[in-house]
Amino acid sequence: MSTTFTATDHLLMARALRLAERGAYTTKPNPMVGCVIAQGDEIVGEGFHQRAGEAHAEVIALQTAGARAKGATVYVSLEPCAHTGRTGPCADALIAAGVARVIAAMRDPFPQVDGVGFDKLRAAGIVVEWGLMEAQARQLNRGFLSRVERGRPWVRIKLGTSLDGRTAMASGESKWITGEASRLDVQKWRARAGALITGANTVLIDDPSLTVRLGDDTPFVAPLRVVLDPGLATVARGKVRDDSAPTLYIHAPDVKPPRDLHVERATVPVQGGYFDLEAVLKLLAARGINEVQVETGATLAGAFVAAGLADELLLYVAPVLLGERARPLFSGLGIDAMAQRAQLKVVDARAIGEDQRLLLVPVRAESP
Amino acid sequence: MSTTFTATDHLLMARALRLAERGAYTTKPNPMVGCVIAQGDEIVGEGFHQRAGEAHAEVIALQTAGARAKGATVYVSLEPCAHTGRTGPCADALIAAGVARVIAAMRDPFPQVDGVGFDKLRAAGIVVEWGLMEAQARQLNRGFLSRVERGRPWVRIKLGTSLDGRTAMASGESKWITGEASRLDVQKWRARAGALITGANTVLIDDPSLTVRLGDDTPFVAPLRVVLDPGLATVARGKVRDDSAPTLYIHAPDVKPPRDLHVERATVPVQGGYFDLEAVLKLLAARGINEVQVETGATLAGAFVAAGLADELLLYVAPVLLGERARPLFSGLGIDAMAQRAQLKVVDARAIGEDQRLLLVPVRAESP
Repeated sequence: MSTTFTATDHLLMARALRLAERGAYTTKPNPMVGCVIAQGDEIVGEGFHQRAGEAHAEVIALQTAGARAKGATVYVSLEPCAHTGRTGPCADALIAAGVARVIAAMRDPFPQVDGVGFDKLRAAGIVVEWGLMEAQARQLNRGFLSRVERGRPWVRIKLGTSLDGRTAMASGESKWITGEASRLDVQKWRARAGALITGANTVLIDDPSLTVRLGDDTPFVAPLRVVLDPGLATVARGKVRDDSAPTLYIHAPDVKPPRDLHVERATVPVQGGYFDLEAVLKLLAARGINEVQVETGATLAGAFVAAGLADELLLYVAPVLLGERARPLFSGLGIDAMAQRAQLKVVDARAIGEDQRLLLVPVRAESP
Repeated sequence: MSTTFTATDHLLMARALRLAERGAYTTKPNPMVGCVIAQGDEIVGEGFHQRAGEAHAEVIALQTAGARAKGATVYVSLEPCAHTGRTGPCADALIAAGVARVIAAMRDPFPQVDGVGFDKLRAAGIVVEWGLMEAQARQLNRGFLSRVERGRPWVRIKLGTSLDGRTAMASGESKWITGEASRLDVQKWRARAGALITGANTVLIDDPSLTVRLGDDTPFVAPLRVVLDPGLATVARGKVRDDSAPTLYIHAPDVKPPRDLHVERATVPVQGGYFDLEAVLKLLAARGINEVQVETGATLAGAFVAAGLADELLLYVAPVLLGERARPLFSGLGIDAMAQRAQLKVVDARAIGEDQRLLLVPVRAESP
């Protein structure tokens, strides 16, 4: 795109992106979308998509704008839809309202949209431009985009660690390395996720409930709890089985579940004691999961990293030392020389209580 | 002190502290001192102590103030001296200039001052107050205060580490974990230090020069390079022996140095292969060393921590993973349960290039 966007354009799109993010806990499996309608630099309407099946951002913004939508510019964080899903096409609504110009942060790769929304608007004589703050829009919907574009959810590995990179004592004891503020912060990341993955060992040792406890009445859609348990060794126990959220056990194909087992389950091939993690992720994508948060020990976390399936690391680094006998951050990375090290990049770093929180993404090796 | 200091008092003392810090690389073994002379909120003179043997901060500030010092308020980061060292007593100079009021951040615990400066000023009819921004003043001169109050230098352990708490590959390979910006930043901390301690293994494996390379012509007093080498195994080699800075080898009392050895050396008792680190520090304090920076591997760094002699940790955390076979951050901490963990507190956290730099201090267990 050769369009030069103005400072006002940037400001209003930034507002649309902030609005979109308000749906982070509730739009799944839909993308987050925010919309601002403006006459010049005056905002006349705005809205965001709150929940799958409910009104889209553009429709809410048009409602608040009323007659002032006529001749206005629409800033929307994602291409307006052109198809009738659970709600009518937003493109039609924008045309009916008589808007003059639509600026979208990005094209929607979802097969039923994918440029058709833009085409429909243009065919109606509306000026369409896109690509404004696209990087930010992609970052916001990295889960949805991963599922649609790669056929698997975006994978976040969450770990609490000491300064010396230890996640538990040799005995397995790990309560608590990080502080209360960090443990509360984790809840927000859980609320974003469509699924939380843990392993059988973590269920046996830590017995996490893997529920979302935000501490207030912010609405959220509870993420699916997924237990990777090859031998179904943990199905009889654990807080993860309570009825506060759905739970899915994934086990090896050759393991026969007990006859009286009343849990949802699925099978995924196991090799050498390890699940085919790509198959696990495909299965979750098929269920509409955009973002997965892995909350487990060093072995399973290391398996995701070693398989190149860790899209981001969410590290809470507590100001403590646990010593060299404690458990590592990741096992099985198979690194023996500096040249083999896994290089990452800090996306965000900040203090959370007494801890430091780092969000990192791997730096993929450039192809020659 | 029950004095209530004004916002102007805080502002001008903050300025005095900033001035003091300009001497960080050069005043050793003297404390850093900054001085501001003001008429109301107008600064009429200021100065800082630049180098041992040269003029004190108060004298320079009086010179710049000239006749306007009469009736003025003096903000000084440390109690003015009352004794004749290499320069005359500052208290006398302040009295002669006719200042009305002296506000000091802290009392100087140095035996020849220690309240005598304040007494002298008060006896001359000058209003004396102290304790304004004392915590900041103590933090600034923690090296000098440690030597005077505890009889040993302040010990900073500097380490470059991966996210997973690893400081080298199993092979010893460690070039480079941290980025160029971090390695430049380390130079500034070296320049502050009176001595840099390393171990024989680090000399053998990394061969550091342990010189200060600031990349510009900022003046500094080169820190003493100290090699802890029980058997004098490394005296024949290493960049640490070049003539860019003095070097001291510390070895076991029962090791006889080679006859043709032309290095400065001292002996300290060794037990079970380890030096008595308190004795090492006492020896350095006796040489006027205020701040020590330890730049070494996990074993010697761990020994300082385990002995309770690490006053602060300077950690450069690079966004890389080195895997669980790589070397730990600290060896020999002897921690087996969460209750035994070493608790620290973040004093400063910031990005340095692609790395995160953390400055931490141990949280000492409260006595009952």
